[in-house]
Amino acid sequence: MRDALVAAAFRLFLERGYEQTTVDDIVALAGVGRRSFFRYFPSKEDVVFPDHEGCLADMTGFLAASPPECEPVRRVCDAARLVLRMYAENPTFSVQRYRLTKQVPGLRAYELSVVWRYERALAEYLRGRYGGRPDGTLRADVIAAAVVAAHNNALRSWLRSDGADDAAATVDHALGYVQSTFGTTAAGPAPDGSPDPAATLFGRPVEHPDDVVVLVSRRDAPLWRVVQEIETAFGRA
Amino acid sequence: MRDALVAAAFRLFLERGYEQTTVDDIVALAGVGRRSFFRYFPSKEDVVFPDHEGCLADMTGFLAASPPECEPVRRVCDAARLVLRMYAENPTFSVQRYRLTKQVPGLRAYELSVVWRYERALAEYLRGRYGGRPDGTLRADVIAAAVVAAHNNALRSWLRSDGADDAAATVDHALGYVQSTFGTTAAGPAPDGSPDPAATLFGRPVEHPDDVVVLVSRRDAPLWRVVQEIETAFGRA
Repeated sequence: MRDALVAAAFRLFLERGYEQTTVDDIVALAGVGRRSFFRYFPSKEDVVFPDHEGCLADMTGFLAASPPECEPVRRVCDAARLVLRMYAENPTFSVQRYRLTKQVPGLRAYELSVVWRYERALAEYLRGRYGGRPDGTLRADVIAAAVVAAHNNALRSWLRSDGADDAAATVDHALGYVQSTFGTTAAGPAPDGSPDPAATLFGRPVEHPDDVVVLVSRRDAPLWRVVQEIETAFGRA
Repeated sequence: MRDALVAAAFRLFLERGYEQTTVDDIVALAGVGRRSFFRYFPSKEDVVFPDHEGCLADMTGFLAASPPECEPVRRVCDAARLVLRMYAENPTFSVQRYRLTKQVPGLRAYELSVVWRYERALAEYLRGRYGGRPDGTLRADVIAAAVVAAHNNALRSWLRSDGADDAAATVDHALGYVQSTFGTTAAGPAPDGSPDPAATLFGRPVEHPDDVVVLVSRRDAPLWRVVQEIETAFGRA
């Protein structure tokens, strides 16, 4: 019945417009009573985004079940992928809703409040992980916002392609940018959990590792050892 | 008259609650007619945030007037400081509004839509600056979101201190994190516009420059020159 209500609502929204459609119109087309509608959806706006509550619950559960050894930035990127997956499961519906949301300011406001709840879920998890560090909450809030912005950039790009692009590849690319900016490794932890020293520097990836040699050393290291390391790094020893 | 309406509205919101106060109550206390209210404020929500439209216009103007040589991340951080300044100009009012907004879901939704407009203004400017680059819009969206999140983290921290903390220092610290993550220099460009090589690495600051020596070199550089540079860097030449 829930699916029938969503289908009826979208048929009417597309035919008449969102504002011109009442809950009475929707229940009449679906052949159910008003009480049935409000059992599933608190308001007309909620029927436009029928899967966000479930997705938020999935995301919260996914984050709560995180193994303690997992890299936090990678984890929140994976959590964001749950949202894209929800959109990508039904491209036609997602693209229709995207067009509708752009036209109706009230839906845009509703969407912002949903996005904010996803962002808070990610930030809460990161705050827990960064709890003991200096600037832990700042770092958590900024990374959560960056993940959401990257996800939404990819999502909008996919929606503008009318769902024709590869959604997973688009979001992987966008989240890769965030992971490489904030994560402790670019490609994820090595099997033993240690970052790959050839690909990262201060926890950030070296963009053209083949062209550039980077040496990081303590100032009090013996010079002969530094030179030896450079020779090895340059492949000339 | 605009200020009188804001003062009357806040007196009533604090005495009776936001939902229990009508526009008629506000105009009666301010001693003006309903038409005067709606000349200044489209809705009751707008009287709660009387300065955002002006601040958004200031921000847009500030970004539009950016010299082409200025560092984009630094510029959007400075633009965000305009918002904090607006809050810090009137701590009592800002703290009262913060408490009110936390209690009223409708005001929270309004605030989210305002925050989103600030974020779009920053992102539009950055999209213009990064237009030709690969991933220009992705980078612009992520940095704009990071700046807004850092600003809001600092703003909330200041509001929770009841306006007692140093607002400018708090936001400088938070925006410094974003600048050091994304900007091309940590402390801003040198007078000639070039980044300071001692303080940055791949555009990111070295956190403990006194303890660590970092050398970045092309792989095809002559080895003697590399060694010479290391000796200089280690202060042993």
